[in-house]
Formats: sequence, C-alpha cells, structure tokens
Amino acid sequence: MSERPHSKTRSQELYEEARDLIPGGVSRNTVFHRPYPHYVKEASGCYVTDVEGVERIDFANNMASLIHGHAFSPIVEGVTDQINKGTAFTIATEAELAFARLLCDRAPRFEKIRFVNSGTEAVMAMIKACRAYTGRPKIAKAEGAYHGTYDFAEVSQKANPNNWGDINQPNSVPVAMGTPQNVLDDVVIFPYNDIERTLAILNQHADEIACVLIDPVPHRVGLVQGTNEFVEALYKWTRENGALLVFDEVVTFRVTYSGAQEKYNVKPDLTALGKIIGGGFPIGAFTGRSDVMNILDPGAKNWLFPHSGTFSANPVSMVAGRIAMEHYDREAIDQINALTQKANDQISEAIRIAGVPVSITGAGSMFRLHLRAEPPTSYREAYQTKEAASLITKMLDYLFYEEKLMMINTLACMFSTVMSQKEVDVLSHAMLNMFRQFKPEIEKIQQQQL
Amino acid sequence: MSERPHSKTRSQELYEEARDLIPGGVSRNTVFHRPYPHYVKEASGCYVTDVEGVERIDFANNMASLIHGHAFSPIVEGVTDQINKGTAFTIATEAELAFARLLCDRAPRFEKIRFVNSGTEAVMAMIKACRAYTGRPKIAKAEGAYHGTYDFAEVSQKANPNNWGDINQPNSVPVAMGTPQNVLDDVVIFPYNDIERTLAILNQHADEIACVLIDPVPHRVGLVQGTNEFVEALYKWTRENGALLVFDEVVTFRVTYSGAQEKYNVKPDLTALGKIIGGGFPIGAFTGRSDVMNILDPGAKNWLFPHSGTFSANPVSMVAGRIAMEHYDREAIDQINALTQKANDQISEAIRIAGVPVSITGAGSMFRLHLRAEPPTSYREAYQTKEAASLITKMLDYLFYEEKLMMINTLACMFSTVMSQKEVDVLSHAMLNMFRQFKPEIEKIQQQQL
Repeated sequence: MSERPHSKTRSQELYEEARDLIPGGVSRNTVFHRPYPHYVKEASGCYVTDVEGVERIDFANNMASLIHGHAFSPIVEGVTDQINKGTAFTIATEAELAFARLLCDRAPRFEKIRFVNSGTEAVMAMIKACRAYTGRPKIAKAEGAYHGTYDFAEVSQKANPNNWGDINQPNSVPVAMGTPQNVLDDVVIFPYNDIERTLAILNQHADEIACVLIDPVPHRVGLVQGTNEFVEALYKWTRENGALLVFDEVVTFRVTYSGAQEKYNVKPDLTALGKIIGGGFPIGAFTGRSDVMNILDPGAKNWLFPHSGTFSANPVSMVAGRIAMEHYDREAIDQINALTQKANDQISEAIRIAGVPVSITGAGSMFRLHLRAEPPTSYREAYQTKEAASLITKMLDYLFYEEKLMMINTLACMFSTVMSQKEVDVLSHAMLNMFRQFKPEIEKIQQQQL
Repeated sequence: MSERPHSKTRSQELYEEARDLIPGGVSRNTVFHRPYPHYVKEASGCYVTDVEGVERIDFANNMASLIHGHAFSPIVEGVTDQINKGTAFTIATEAELAFARLLCDRAPRFEKIRFVNSGTEAVMAMIKACRAYTGRPKIAKAEGAYHGTYDFAEVSQKANPNNWGDINQPNSVPVAMGTPQNVLDDVVIFPYNDIERTLAILNQHADEIACVLIDPVPHRVGLVQGTNEFVEALYKWTRENGALLVFDEVVTFRVTYSGAQEKYNVKPDLTALGKIIGGGFPIGAFTGRSDVMNILDPGAKNWLFPHSGTFSANPVSMVAGRIAMEHYDREAIDQINALTQKANDQISEAIRIAGVPVSITGAGSMFRLHLRAEPPTSYREAYQTKEAASLITKMLDYLFYEEKLMMINTLACMFSTVMSQKEVDVLSHAMLNMFRQFKPEIEKIQQQQL
C-alpha cells in the first residue's frame, strides 16, 4: 500500500468510526475491504477520487450500474430539474410513462413493464408473478448464479465443494444461515449450460415448477454466455411443462440494444431489469408478456398479484434512467462493445507476453479474468478456491493501490461509454505489470487446479 | 368530477397510453384510481399541482414518506451538490457514515444499522437476520398488518371474512396468488393487541419462531397503538422462548424522536425503518442490537448473513435522509404533532356538528377516519366491507375533486412539517362538508355494522 504505515489515513479514521455503527462498517459487502475500504470524495466520468485525493479509473462502475460513468451531465441536468419539482408523489407521473415507453420499444418481448426499487425487488416480483400466473410453488435456477437477495433467488449462489453435492442433483444451499428448509425445498438447482443434466433435474419437478430463471451471461457462474442450445432447450421444456422461462437481465441488458436476449431465437416470458436502467439511481423493473403481466392489473378480472411500493417508479429514477437509456443507443452500444473488445485483445496480448495461465470470458462491455489457462465452462470450474480468492484479492489490491484502477472483486471490468482508448491502454499496461508480478503465484494456482 | 365530460383531460390521455404499457397503468397500486389517476406537473411544500393545473393540499405525502412535504429547499440543495459529485460508487461514502451516526444517536436500541433501498427490503433483511441469529424458520405477525411485499411479511395483510378463519387461530392468507404453501406454513398469524389469544397461538410454535414482528401503530389494522401490556407480553414471551421481538417502524418512526418505540418500557431487538428517513428518495434500513447485527459483518467469526445491494446506502438517499432527519428534531416533532392534534380536535368537532358515526384513530402526525361511531380495536373491526370501501372511495373522490385535498386511500392523513393552521382549517372545513353530504350513506354503513 502507498500510505505511510505509521499515520492513519482519513479513510482509516472514517472506517474505524463506521465499524462501531454499521456491521462490517458498510451496508454493502461489495464495498467491504481489508484492512479498510477507501472513502470517496467525488467522481466524474470514469474517474473516482478518494478522500486521500487519489484518483483512479473506475472499471467497477458501482457494480456495473453506471453505463455513462459518474455525474453524466445530461442526467445531472435532468435530475436537477426534477428534484426542484418534487421527487415522489401519490399520483401518477409522466416520467414513468415516458420511460416505460422507451424500454418497451427496445425489445419485442417487453410488452408491459412495472418498476420497482432494485434488482432484488425486480427478481422477487418476477418470481411472485410466475407463481401467481401458474399457481405453482417452485422455481428452478442455476447453481452459482446471483439474482439478488430474495432468499429463494439466492439459493446456491455461494455453493462450495463442501456442500454443493452431486452435479447430477446439486444441493439447494442457503446463502443466509437460517433460511427455512421450506424455501430450500421450493428451489430446484441445475448446472448452467448443461442441457442433459438440467432437463433430467427439471423433469423430477415438472408439475411444480412455476419458472426457470436464468441470467443469460451469469457473472458469478463465470461470465460465460448461455448457449443457444441451452436456452432453446429450457424454452422448449417450459412450453411442454406449463412453466415460464424468465431472464435476469439486471446486469446483461447492457450487452445489446435489447439485452442479451437479442442473441437468442427464443425469447423469455418475463425479464428482470435493474443496474444501468436507473442512470445511477435506485431502480428495478420486470417486463414481458402482456397476458402474464396483466395479473398485476387491479382493474382486471384475474387480478392475482397485488403489488405496490412507496418509492417504485419515483420520478428521479425514471428521469435519470430514461436519459441514460436515450444516450445508450445502438451507436453507443457498438462503440462501447468495440472498445471493450479492444481491451480484451490487448489484455489477451498481455497474457501471452507475460506467459501466464489466465483466461477471459465476457460479453458486450463486460469481461472477467480467470486464473486458469482455459476459460471455465461451469460454476464449478469457475469456482475460486481459497488460495485463488486470496491471490485475486492481492491482485485487485495491486491494481487499486499501485495502478490506480478499480475493478469488480471477481477480477471483472464493466465499461462505461465515457471511456476511451486512453483508459484501455492504461488498463492493459497495468494488467501486464500485474501478470508479471504475480506470475509465480498464478502458476501455482493453475497447478493446484490440474 | 369537475372536468368536462365530453373532452378528454390530459391525465386521461396519458393514462390510456399508460394502460398499454404498464399493468393497471401504474407501477404502484396505491396510485391506481378509477376511471383514471391524475398526473402530477409539480409540487412544492404541501401543495401538488396536476397536469390540468389544479392545485391540491397533500395529506398523503407519498404514502407518509415526505415529512417536510415536496421540494424541501435544504434537501434540494444537498442533493444537487451530491449528484454533481456522483450518485453511486463501489467504495465507501462519508454520507452513509454521517447518516448512520445520526440515526443511531436517536434511539437507545439503534446500536448498529444497515441501509437498503425500501421498506420491503428492510423488513426482508430484518427477518432474514432473525432467522440467521436464531436458526429458526418461522415468523409471527399480526393479521392485517402491512409490512411490505416480501411474501412472508405480507401474509394475511388482506385477510377477509371469507378466509380469515377462527380468531383463536387465524389462517395464513396469501396476498399474491400462488404464494407457496411452505411460505404460509412458516408464518404464524395473531390478532393485534389481543394478549391472551396471541400468547396461546405463539405457544403452539414456541421452538420454531425466529421473531415476533409488529408495527407499533399498524395503519391497516386500524392505526391503533399497540398497548403497553401487549408489547410487554410479546417482549416477555420472546425472552422466555428464545425469539426476537422486532418492530416495523417504517411508518411510525415519525411519531416521536426515537420512533413509536419511545413510548414503551421495553425495546425491540431490531427495528425496520423507511419512508421519511429517505427525505423523498428510496430508502430502507434495519437497526438494533449489536450482537444481532454483527452476524452481517463479513469480518466477524459468526458471519451468518451475507448481505449486499447495488444501490443500498447510495449517497443521494443518505444525504437527503440525513438532512430530512436533522430538520425533524424534537422541536419540529412537537410542532407537527400539536398541529395534527389540532386537526384531530377540529375534525372531531366537525363529526359532532354533522352528527355522523365517524371515529378517529392515530398517533403523532398521522390519523385515520373510520365509518363507525366507536374506534375499532382490531383488524376485524377496522375491516372495510365492500359497501364501506365503496363509500370511502366516493368520499376520497369528493375531497380530491371538490375540496382539492389528497389523502391516503384508507381515509388517513399524514402531516408534513410545512403545514400550518391554514391547511388544518381547510381540511376540517372540507371534512364537515363531506360529513354533511354523505351523512345518509355513512349512517347506512353504521347500521349494517350493528
């Protein structure tokens, strides 16, 4: 670390106080860092300055939620105007309508939409809608996939070799201790992209499954894309067995103009959105087939799912989100994806030059590095051993303290549209330095895996 | 209605478009209104202007979440400053720390706190914390009490005479159709303020209950305060049976400087917060005993509850909330509560003058009217028959269209600090007009209840 060892930094002082008031000192474990997290002073574009005055390039973008980086002028202007007119009302807003129209125009299967406050709320509401529509209790999800903190949705997200069980029948592993056994029993776990095993597992619960939930490029599974064959098999199975196929595109909507679902011939019945669609403000949404979404209509005969929320569709998130998405048009997406591909190429070159067993996975404007020569094809392959996780933390610290780069704690980068070739060069150069410095340790991890 | 019947209003036009894009035309059923909801143009202080240009006094305050009304200058200034520095980061913020300190200083039992994005998320996280801490699966909650949309928390919130069952053993009634039977089985329902029945019910599940969850002044139960005896009985029962007592103060924190819990000799182990603590921006929080909250600490040995969230503790909500609460000091609370009491007195006088069988319940800066001479003492007494609900809708429409007043759809008012005697006089005068106009219908409802 660059700081002087014998005097406390401002961040250190703040954190000591925070630990007395907040468990772990932070409300979000993604911000947790040993020996202490750094505190932000301000941020602009793709640069974040901490209270010590150190500026860093931000490849984390608040866990992939800031597609235009920080303090994007059009959003600042739009939100400033809105907050002077009020931020929350008990009557309807045009801001909600305008944003609903924009999003529903972007993907053919986004027929109707409802807004909530987070990805967690979006996935929860989507699952409740599936249960209400089908009258069935169970959901099926992929081992290792992250879908927010609703307890049903988070089952097996952190499964490890000690508890994940036989791959032919993965265990339902709780994230939070004390998760009711009843919850675990209502969640069916399958291995991502493994058609044969997944269908065999689903068939065991064919009459009870309300929905099959997947992220089309699940970050925690390895940031590997769902194959067309896998998605089509799930689609076919859900058609044949009276279930719904639903996508969590909270992270992946950035991949193309219509989300990652654009790449598949078949479309999900419902989709959960979040992250970038809020323009930096709290948001979630779920959208899809009209006949399913209509069970939320209090004026409809089959009103099966009463649903509300104090801050849902608040006009600040609606305005910020609409402006963010207006600026995230096809041209902007082509540009950011091309720049990210450039970064991929340069980092691949750095891997080659350094001669380290590292691989890259990803899609669109996001990628993740793995401490293995061949990219992982499953959660169990992508799973970080304690030693690998420890080395990754050291590598992230090296990038943060020495190279002044912020990345996501899986060694992932989420680009923003305000980045340019300049930042890509800094990134790939930093990566080369890192690969060289940690080469012996990376090779040791690789050997343990063989 | 005041609008001309043969030409469409702007709100009507917008709503027709919204119905094609959003189920029911709104993301929040609280905003749903027949034949159409009105759309806001702008709001300031306690006045809301719709797109037709009609100004109304706002006694709903976005479902009790705006304690200083709309576009409160200190909040607008603070948030404007923050959004120019960024709205969301993957590192820590002083804004979170400052707000955590303020809230923890307000109540003795707020030892540690974590922030989330909504009251729904706060109650969900609080329940998960209780399960993790106790290792038990079940929660107990009051029939009719609203605690957000987490399916466990919403059980029996809308129970009705056809499904609520024997008062000695109330049924677990789902809100959303398709709620898994497993969820219903893990929720124990008791009648609020009924010590004998409640303890008998709890005793049947003594070894399985993680927490007893109550709102100290539950709006949907009748906005009747929990008696000291009831709360003490629950406290004693939870001590004797290894369970936690947790309060949902999302609505009631406004009642005193430390929330409604200030009035009881015993304190809850954990408390969920939301609504007014966000200063008009999305927020939730849960707080309480250090030894319970510490299970959320990723650095602690007994890290039982991993927990994160992309937008949790975002600095905009933190800054807005801190400023809102700084201005909601003891003096402000005394003033708003006194003004609300004045409104209560004047409306009671209007009830007397009009000679209608109407009663008032409430606490602090909130009250609710009931179409019955004696205030209800339970959810089943407060329950609105179809006829009563229909009349209340007519009364609310009268207030909205003729008297230019916005209220909450249970005939409840939630005051803001920017109100004065002027608005109270308008309100009580409007109420007198309403009582006189609807007297025959109110009397008919009363007769049906006898």
